[in-house]
Amino acid sequence: MADVNRLIVARLESRVSLIPELAGHLVNAGGKRVRPMLTLIAAKLCGYQGTRHHGLAAAVEFIHTATLLHDDVVDDSDLRRGAATANAVWGNKPSVLVGDFLFARAFQLMVEDGSLEVLRILSDASAMIAEGEVAQLITANDTETTEAAYMEVITAKTATLFAAAAELGAVVADRSDAEAEHLRRYGENLGIVFQLVDDVLDYNARETDLGKNIGDDFKDGKITLPVVLAFERGNAEERAFWQRTLEQGEQTPEDFANAIALMNRHGALEDSMTRATDYAERAKNALSDFAENPAQQAMLDLVEFCIERIY
Amino acid sequence: MADVNRLIVARLESRVSLIPELAGHLVNAGGKRVRPMLTLIAAKLCGYQGTRHHGLAAAVEFIHTATLLHDDVVDDSDLRRGAATANAVWGNKPSVLVGDFLFARAFQLMVEDGSLEVLRILSDASAMIAEGEVAQLITANDTETTEAAYMEVITAKTATLFAAAAELGAVVADRSDAEAEHLRRYGENLGIVFQLVDDVLDYNARETDLGKNIGDDFKDGKITLPVVLAFERGNAEERAFWQRTLEQGEQTPEDFANAIALMNRHGALEDSMTRATDYAERAKNALSDFAENPAQQAMLDLVEFCIERIY
Repeated sequence: MADVNRLIVARLESRVSLIPELAGHLVNAGGKRVRPMLTLIAAKLCGYQGTRHHGLAAAVEFIHTATLLHDDVVDDSDLRRGAATANAVWGNKPSVLVGDFLFARAFQLMVEDGSLEVLRILSDASAMIAEGEVAQLITANDTETTEAAYMEVITAKTATLFAAAAELGAVVADRSDAEAEHLRRYGENLGIVFQLVDDVLDYNARETDLGKNIGDDFKDGKITLPVVLAFERGNAEERAFWQRTLEQGEQTPEDFANAIALMNRHGALEDSMTRATDYAERAKNALSDFAENPAQQAMLDLVEFCIERIY
Repeated sequence: MADVNRLIVARLESRVSLIPELAGHLVNAGGKRVRPMLTLIAAKLCGYQGTRHHGLAAAVEFIHTATLLHDDVVDDSDLRRGAATANAVWGNKPSVLVGDFLFARAFQLMVEDGSLEVLRILSDASAMIAEGEVAQLITANDTETTEAAYMEVITAKTATLFAAAAELGAVVADRSDAEAEHLRRYGENLGIVFQLVDDVLDYNARETDLGKNIGDDFKDGKITLPVVLAFERGNAEERAFWQRTLEQGEQTPEDFANAIALMNRHGALEDSMTRATDYAERAKNALSDFAENPAQQAMLDLVEFCIERIY
């Protein structure tokens, strides 16, 4: 991972100094680096001995960073990874354009790697992510959003890149399609766990732990699973509350606490975590055909880590 | 070109209907399709007989469309190609995300084509364009911008994609590096002509001809060549005018007419066109090693067409 971090910093370079400055602000703010780590560990699981996975892990992180920059513009966020967002510091304009640069740089890294299969996986993933983001925008303030529609959005916008990142491990190691598919399934289910937990944390985390503003989803009228469940199970008065706060965006300072109280009344947060635990099981099962070894154990631990973020 | 247009429309498709709707709004507003046309005509010049150039021309147009969507967000533009911009109709958020989708879709098209050389050319071009856009943002309100800095920006943000689009013609036809280089030089110089003319038109076009708001560059404080020349040649009072209007952004309704008067006093628009004519010559010269044929003639005519937009 240290090699990947060095590569990330090196490849942020540009004649235009605002680019490494702005992108570096986000990259250096830390972040869990879960996605590039997935590529590294999946390559290791597949017995890969070379160094191609470093460049591909960096490409994955660049795509992720590009989407974060654009997300923060779209969501008007001002805090991420415990620091001011790039759009809060430099404004929306450079955030949009530096995101574009990082996306292009990711493809340059893939071209240097030279595998069309890698390019196919990550260009498909990139298109899918953008589709998921647009779909999320459409459902953003619609309290009638179903659990199925929510699952489709998070699978596209989040789980797709996890799936691609893990699949790359099998591709660099030249393993079978079946093994690539197992890794893809592992990544996809892990990504769903990750997003479900994230969406729960937005209602019950302590801000210092989260590194971003708690309640942002509520403020933005995002319809995440806790909301979907609380709305479905709510009475007429409760539904009116969700419609006022999330559809019409009329919120008082007490409404966030009210929202949490309604979620607790209906077990919406616990049940979201139950879903997360189900997907965690699927992620672990996807690894059952691989030999037991430290890499496999690390990947199983990663699933647990994602679940335990909540506790 | 009809085949390319069909392909463009077909590949805008997505499960998320807002994507073809928003992107189609811009694509169907017309636009000159100069960049994909360059790929087609350059392939023809190289004697190419297949159909690969259709997909690549569509990829080029998708990259261009993605940059337009993001540009209009960055510039807060409300009129393009004689129609309301996507950001004016749907807001900034979907414009950013649909731009990302188009960019990813362009790479999917290249992957389907299967040439790493094509992927290298267009990923390099995409990174360069983003760098140029960021550089432009930095110089946006700086009246001290030199002609050299201006040329660097427009070469990166505009001429790069023209160069890449033309070079692709030699790549699909499997021609020599020398021929690819000639075509790249043709495209780059044509792109510079195109942008210089665009920047002049922003001060002297009739709005109905331009299909966008005249005076947008002035309003945004963009430092284009006519401004650079007028500022360099202006006296202290005139420089104070440019600083007030473009650096401090303090403009009265009469200032745009004043700006044009100052440009005319110093021959700034004519001299910008003289530069354009120089680059037009370079573009034409780049084709001198190719045999005379209808494709070559069409490419020479295209240079003239770009110059004559102004008259």
